[in-house]
Amino acid sequence: MEFFQLQNQDGEARAGRIYTEHGVIETPIFMPVGTRASVKTLWQEDLERMNAQIILGNTYHLYLKPGHELVEKMGGLHKFMSWPRPILTDSGGYQVFSLSDINKLTEEGVTFQSHIDGSKHLITPEKSMEVQRSLGSDIVMAFDECPKLPATKDTLKKSMELTHRWAGRCKTVELKSHQKLFGIIQGGLHEDLREESMKGLIDLGFDGYALGGLSVGEKNEEMVEFCRSFVPKMPKQKPRYLMGVGKPMDILNGIRSGLDMFDCVLPTRNARNGQFLTAQGPLNIKKARFLTDELPPDPECSCQVCSRYSRSYIRHLFNVGEYLAGSLISYHNVHFYLRMVEQAREAILRGKFDDYYRSFYNKYSSNFWE
Amino acid sequence: MEFFQLQNQDGEARAGRIYTEHGVIETPIFMPVGTRASVKTLWQEDLERMNAQIILGNTYHLYLKPGHELVEKMGGLHKFMSWPRPILTDSGGYQVFSLSDINKLTEEGVTFQSHIDGSKHLITPEKSMEVQRSLGSDIVMAFDECPKLPATKDTLKKSMELTHRWAGRCKTVELKSHQKLFGIIQGGLHEDLREESMKGLIDLGFDGYALGGLSVGEKNEEMVEFCRSFVPKMPKQKPRYLMGVGKPMDILNGIRSGLDMFDCVLPTRNARNGQFLTAQGPLNIKKARFLTDELPPDPECSCQVCSRYSRSYIRHLFNVGEYLAGSLISYHNVHFYLRMVEQAREAILRGKFDDYYRSFYNKYSSNFWE
Repeated sequence: MEFFQLQNQDGEARAGRIYTEHGVIETPIFMPVGTRASVKTLWQEDLERMNAQIILGNTYHLYLKPGHELVEKMGGLHKFMSWPRPILTDSGGYQVFSLSDINKLTEEGVTFQSHIDGSKHLITPEKSMEVQRSLGSDIVMAFDECPKLPATKDTLKKSMELTHRWAGRCKTVELKSHQKLFGIIQGGLHEDLREESMKGLIDLGFDGYALGGLSVGEKNEEMVEFCRSFVPKMPKQKPRYLMGVGKPMDILNGIRSGLDMFDCVLPTRNARNGQFLTAQGPLNIKKARFLTDELPPDPECSCQVCSRYSRSYIRHLFNVGEYLAGSLISYHNVHFYLRMVEQAREAILRGKFDDYYRSFYNKYSSNFWE
Repeated sequence: MEFFQLQNQDGEARAGRIYTEHGVIETPIFMPVGTRASVKTLWQEDLERMNAQIILGNTYHLYLKPGHELVEKMGGLHKFMSWPRPILTDSGGYQVFSLSDINKLTEEGVTFQSHIDGSKHLITPEKSMEVQRSLGSDIVMAFDECPKLPATKDTLKKSMELTHRWAGRCKTVELKSHQKLFGIIQGGLHEDLREESMKGLIDLGFDGYALGGLSVGEKNEEMVEFCRSFVPKMPKQKPRYLMGVGKPMDILNGIRSGLDMFDCVLPTRNARNGQFLTAQGPLNIKKARFLTDELPPDPECSCQVCSRYSRSYIRHLFNVGEYLAGSLISYHNVHFYLRMVEQAREAILRGKFDDYYRSFYNKYSSNFWE
């Protein structure tokens, strides 16, 4: 069985299947983020009920707490958190640069201070592989450097070359037999750098290819434009993954460009700010207009939250700081993302993706709540 | 149909049924506390799944936020929070004395400053009835004064007499047709005062009788002793409710004395401190000994948490401050209380309550985890 099977292409949009030891993933797919072995506020039962097919774990966080040795001792991340379905772990690279208190980059790797207790650590490409091997994820990401945009082309080129050398070192580490390794294409918005990066990675040979370093400071249109132009040149027989992006329309634009996999903390993070994502755009439950509103958060949604609870009730919970508010909003938002990509997939299989895209866009962009 | 039906008595322990417009409550019963229209961290679905038959709402909190007028406008508390089963509301008396920043007691009622925004309010017996009428709970509690123990007998007597006059005023307010009103017996640990209080309330006539002002500073043995002696003198044909108490053994001791209804924030509050209540006593999930422990929190429990998640995993979640830790522990703890009273009820119906009491006590007091 091939790791990835392309089922249909509609324009550039693709529907496919990824086969892992922990189950099949139907693409395009959204991966809820379970940073510290929990998709914030949700039970694993919730994720199963809403048909999350794969979740993401953050190597940086799990390395610091509870530590990858403990997770390995407990039988790996799947068993530790009781999640029998596929898991992807990132490399820790992005978090080392964005979260750690101090970090120092050398050819060898990155030395950093933990954001939790100030302890010092060195993460190298080899170390990232070892940690992800211990975690036992189904998809392992190569360790990359991730510069913030805007950056000079020279900076981006040097970073991309370092990422390439690191990718080579990642490949030398033996993973568990069920683990697949993805390479991360860098190079900012420069297509020539991205192509050079991709070519180098393809020569090394990976099970899938990711776009890193997007949605890190550039304009949204620039990212959309870049993906529309670049993604179709990526290998057709491998999964294509857009890392850490983004808003609902970013994901639909990504699918339209030919990308297959997405992850983002937005559905759970925005829940903590009271934001529901609905078919008619984001709805901020704090607003006074919802005080006596008996309607569900998203009248077009059939999730457990929208089937039972009113805006008025959830607004109250949010305003007094009840835990339940965060769970209800997170549940709906993750459900919203999963249904969105599921419907995109169905549309691609029927050769109707453009219709779906346009209809979603028109409704979502109506700014009904603003 | 009588409001309360006694099914069996075993020693002093009683099994019965309370009939309300929102369903039947099988006693003895534990009522999870949904202070601000939410049993902390749990979904209403969770409570239904674990067969919570009635929950408690706090009048003081709901009066301040979101306000009883809003709740009434939204169709009452059942509809507002989407909880179709029975609800009991307390009178707000206890919270006015224990939570508000400043309070001043007069014959008329209590003037207090909100603990939320410092706004000034006057709660009288009539006002408490109006608020509870707006909330639409099935069981309404009379407004009482609740002095802290130790207190002089003179203080307790004056307080009890005031509570009695207030009870009379509560009776003058017309409630909704489905609402039942309970009187609250005060008098500290003095049986003569308690009897005087009870006699006065019986003369006024209530649908049920509660013991207030216990577990507020006295020794645990004193409370147990008092209940053993006093409860059997309470009216047999009405539900008997021990307010705000307590630990698992307190509840079993209460049942043994002939009490029917209990509520306590302990299962959800202790969850926030990492405490699981198990058949073998309280287990503090923070302890280092659970670092690599693959067992469920309570191996004798069949709840969703104990069927799936390990101590090691929950310890990790708790240590990094993941929301999920609080939900998992709360779920188990409320389930634990509900099963405990359910099993007590079954034992009473079979005439085997003493066996159940002794077996629970022996196991629970083994201090296995200490």
